[in-house]
Amino acid sequence: MGRQRVYVAIVFIPLFYFLVRYLPPWIFFLLVTGGILLGLHEFYGMYFRGEKRHEIPIGISAGGLAALTLSVGGVESWLTLMTGLVMALLLVEFCLARDMTRGMADGAVLVTGVLYVAGLLGHLILLRRLEGGEYLVFFVFLVTWAGDTGAYYSGKMLGRRKLAPVTSPNKTVEGAIGGLGLSVAASFLGKSWFLPSISVADALGLGIGLGILGQLGDLTESMFKRGAGVKDSSRLIPAHGGLLDRVDSLIFTAPALFHYLIWIKQYGRGISI
Amino acid sequence: MGRQRVYVAIVFIPLFYFLVRYLPPWIFFLLVTGGILLGLHEFYGMYFRGEKRHEIPIGISAGGLAALTLSVGGVESWLTLMTGLVMALLLVEFCLARDMTRGMADGAVLVTGVLYVAGLLGHLILLRRLEGGEYLVFFVFLVTWAGDTGAYYSGKMLGRRKLAPVTSPNKTVEGAIGGLGLSVAASFLGKSWFLPSISVADALGLGIGLGILGQLGDLTESMFKRGAGVKDSSRLIPAHGGLLDRVDSLIFTAPALFHYLIWIKQYGRGISI
Repeated sequence: MGRQRVYVAIVFIPLFYFLVRYLPPWIFFLLVTGGILLGLHEFYGMYFRGEKRHEIPIGISAGGLAALTLSVGGVESWLTLMTGLVMALLLVEFCLARDMTRGMADGAVLVTGVLYVAGLLGHLILLRRLEGGEYLVFFVFLVTWAGDTGAYYSGKMLGRRKLAPVTSPNKTVEGAIGGLGLSVAASFLGKSWFLPSISVADALGLGIGLGILGQLGDLTESMFKRGAGVKDSSRLIPAHGGLLDRVDSLIFTAPALFHYLIWIKQYGRGISI
Repeated sequence: MGRQRVYVAIVFIPLFYFLVRYLPPWIFFLLVTGGILLGLHEFYGMYFRGEKRHEIPIGISAGGLAALTLSVGGVESWLTLMTGLVMALLLVEFCLARDMTRGMADGAVLVTGVLYVAGLLGHLILLRRLEGGEYLVFFVFLVTWAGDTGAYYSGKMLGRRKLAPVTSPNKTVEGAIGGLGLSVAASFLGKSWFLPSISVADALGLGIGLGILGQLGDLTESMFKRGAGVKDSSRLIPAHGGLLDRVDSLIFTAPALFHYLIWIKQYGRGISI
């Protein structure tokens, strides 16, 4: 298990560095869109558990439309699309519902899937569209994966006290602390390596903030899996589980970094975005 | 029943005209916010059916925060809040979930309630904040209520063919057509009375579009009630049911009018908003 993880990392990390730094933005947008479609497939799969439901392709299509709008549209387009999708998806559920006692829950899951997977993970596209976006995307990946990896290995080596015994029995308090430490370290590494425009306070704040949010994102996704009675969201990547298992932390950290940058820009701090 | 509806209308319509036209915006915002809080109370009440759940006050508070942000914030604040609320509410559900098999559905309903009631109905606040917003709010109320009333009375007098026998057995095709006719008539009345800046094509398009969306909004809410096994969302107003029963059409028409206006302004059509 541990060794297989290392092999996957050896393949993916350099590949990823190349993808983020040297490929044109639209290829990055396509990759994120692919991830969103796959992530929604897993999300609805966990809820509908093998039932063949028309909601699944409709929700995935809505996620694709959201990714496209995030890639090429402006703020007004996002708001109009988001508003339209909430109405349209609830209406779709009204038309498709087989069992009215489940209509409200099914419609809500249909809407929430699009917001959770496409809306939150789609912030990677928004980050890439900012000035110097390739560095921002690389920064959020670096800090998030450092946190995940730090939590995994320090939990394995030092873990004693369970963090969330019911939903995620393998997580420990020691792992959480180790993950947070590595997130902060990665944030300072990112600042000194390729993101000099952020201040020391930003690097510390982002290391702590993204470190905590990444772990909370991981716990939130584990609730979905626990509800579905599965260990992994799918069997996509050997020893890493499904796509959602790999990006559950990013789903929380990418939006957090984007909105942090937007607001510090608002208040005239000298970061170039 | 019919007579009681007329009495309620006699009290509410002039009161409403006064409220919309002559009161300062912030009182209108407060009234809409009150409606949002009450609407969320009904929405979660239909889903949790009498269970005492901490999710209910938390979801209602989130709706209040959304209403406040719509009242005073700009586009960036709405996006940041919406993104933060999706993350925070799923996390809240992770912490509160008693039964993990329901966690995903409960979390999704928590999120969707805020989007459906506060996000959609909150467009009344956004409409009021546009230039000439008091007329726009009055217009959307007029067209929507004309559609509701037209559907009710023409369905009562002429109704033969059931429109949606399972979810809403009282609705008929004849009622839907009568409602649409009265929406279009109300739209032209609005244009000639107090909204001369919209074109004849706008008046026709808005009459038809809002007329249809209002009825779809009504059907969507009836799915929620049917799932909960209740006839009215609550017993707030004599013979009119709960608050959501009264505003279910507005929940779809207010956002539609707002986004229509935003987009025709974008394309340089001469409407003053």
